Amino acid sequence: MSIHVAVDIGGTQMRAAAFPLEGYQPLAIQRVPTQSPDSLPQERLVRLIEAVCPPEKHIASIGVAAPGPVNPKTGVIYTAPNIAAFRDFPIVYYLQEKLGAPVLLDNDANLAALGEWQAGAGQGHNHLIYLTISTGIGGGIISDGHLLQGEDGIATELGHVTVIPDGPMCSCGHPGHLEALASGPNIARWTKEQLAGGATSTLATADELTARIIGEAARNGDELAREAFEQAGYYIGLALANFLHIFNPSIVILGGGVSKSGDLLIAPIKRSVEKHVMNPKYARDLIITTAALGDDAGMIGALILARTGIEK
Amino acid sequence: MSIHVAVDIGGTQMRAAAFPLEGYQPLAIQRVPTQSPDSLPQERLVRLIEAVCPPEKHIASIGVAAPGPVNPKTGVIYTAPNIAAFRDFPIVYYLQEKLGAPVLLDNDANLAALGEWQAGAGQGHNHLIYLTISTGIGGGIISDGHLLQGEDGIATELGHVTVIPDGPMCSCGHPGHLEALASGPNIARWTKEQLAGGATSTLATADELTARIIGEAARNGDELAREAFEQAGYYIGLALANFLHIFNPSIVILGGGVSKSGDLLIAPIKRSVEKHVMNPKYARDLIITTAALGDDAGMIGALILARTGIEK
Repeated sequence: MSIHVAVDIGGTQMRAAAFPLEGYQPLAIQRVPTQSPDSLPQERLVRLIEAVCPPEKHIASIGVAAPGPVNPKTGVIYTAPNIAAFRDFPIVYYLQEKLGAPVLLDNDANLAALGEWQAGAGQGHNHLIYLTISTGIGGGIISDGHLLQGEDGIATELGHVTVIPDGPMCSCGHPGHLEALASGPNIARWTKEQLAGGATSTLATADELTARIIGEAARNGDELAREAFEQAGYYIGLALANFLHIFNPSIVILGGGVSKSGDLLIAPIKRSVEKHVMNPKYARDLIITTAALGDDAGMIGALILARTGIEK
Repeated sequence: MSIHVAVDIGGTQMRAAAFPLEGYQPLAIQRVPTQSPDSLPQERLVRLIEAVCPPEKHIASIGVAAPGPVNPKTGVIYTAPNIAAFRDFPIVYYLQEKLGAPVLLDNDANLAALGEWQAGAGQGHNHLIYLTISTGIGGGIISDGHLLQGEDGIATELGHVTVIPDGPMCSCGHPGHLEALASGPNIARWTKEQLAGGATSTLATADELTARIIGEAARNGDELAREAFEQAGYYIGLALANFLHIFNPSIVILGGGVSKSGDLLIAPIKRSVEKHVMNPKYARDLIITTAALGDDAGMIGALILARTGIEK
């Protein structure tokens, strides 16, 4: 009997799961730390995949979700945050050689969009924006039932659009990108700046400040914390209005750690979208909701890629 | 024998052309003013189409390029600038009833993108951005060989993205859109403001200021005029860098009247794109060029829509 394997590579851990030819219930799932002093991540990935595949099963195909930019056509990871060994790494060729099965690759935000579209919150929508808000901000687009990848597979970097041209510096080295205004670390940065400037808040005595801790304070009535999410939501809504003018989707799905703060973030996003759309048509029947697959979206997307990629 | 008819509706004139089943050489082409005190534009459009169709020919299909937002699925023009009769007008239904042939509809910027892709500057490129810069700024996107239309057909409003949140007011009523910074009338507006503020320029004595006249002054060495295009190009390049991060195309085609100023605009656009891309990959093999079909791009696109739409 044949199986598909889905792999989700992250900066701290790699996960692999074996799936039957249909359905989303894994036959086996395992994880290992990405980094180890004893071996290269690619070697450990091969062993991880072998570990979830019973010897009597035939691997029909392997789908791989990688962090950072990749080229799905050439099968090369350009860069993977915090994984030096995966810089310009031909992972498709490597895994095919080692495991003797076809391998399909895309980045995790694209595959999360694919997963949410086929098996999550976006089912039945053929025009979909997926926006993941966590340490960084990334995205994936389904347009007319196609995953948008671009000429070299590096499209839909939705966190790297300029929102405030003279705004704070982004991790990529350019000022005022959405990521620099509304990602988790930047919600914390803004809050710290306000505290340093003398703002009063229950957070003034907090040992550490993260978007999660600020979210808790906001739910407990802290005004500064609420304002931090209000502001992040405002900028996300401003960028989202642009994306609506560009893509005219029927649904926007928010994933990533920061989106788990739910209405604290979604309510200001919706207000900002309504303020910024050029015509109410763009927002009227639009659904803005949170991801249904949570941290499994990328892996489910990798499974769908494995299944549909080989049908071509 | 069968023919296809392509129609291009503009605010001042409507054009119709009959084409054979293959090739881009029209059998007949005619135009009429869009507005007349004697009859409605839709009535005149029917007569215009009949005028280009020899009676012995069978109309296989009609493609219509309309200005402003339309819904290609329902065949309705939402609004057409300066044409009150086409507000929420079911043009596809109307023309099908009157002419007894299948009718396909899209907006002119989308169809110009389709035309340039299939028969103009974009041939052979499957990931293409078309940006038209004239009285307004509009766009069309080919992504992986598909024309991007969105759920209700109102996608790719590329002129209506916020570039400077507190910038000048756009025609759509929102501040700082690309159109409000770099369209023809806004290049003229900026120049007038500089002159009113005391800037020295050969344009100080000009009877009227348009982007075309400012372009001529720039080519004659006027520094303020050159600066006006430099600034428009800077903002277009800033927005374009965002579009590259979103779409990762292999070619950007600039159409519309202002793009005819050529290198005066394209050189600063290229400099700004290089400054603003997050990774040189986005710009390295990218072609930025002007449209090849000129004012016929929308009509050729309507022809292609007529031909391919009925193949479905």
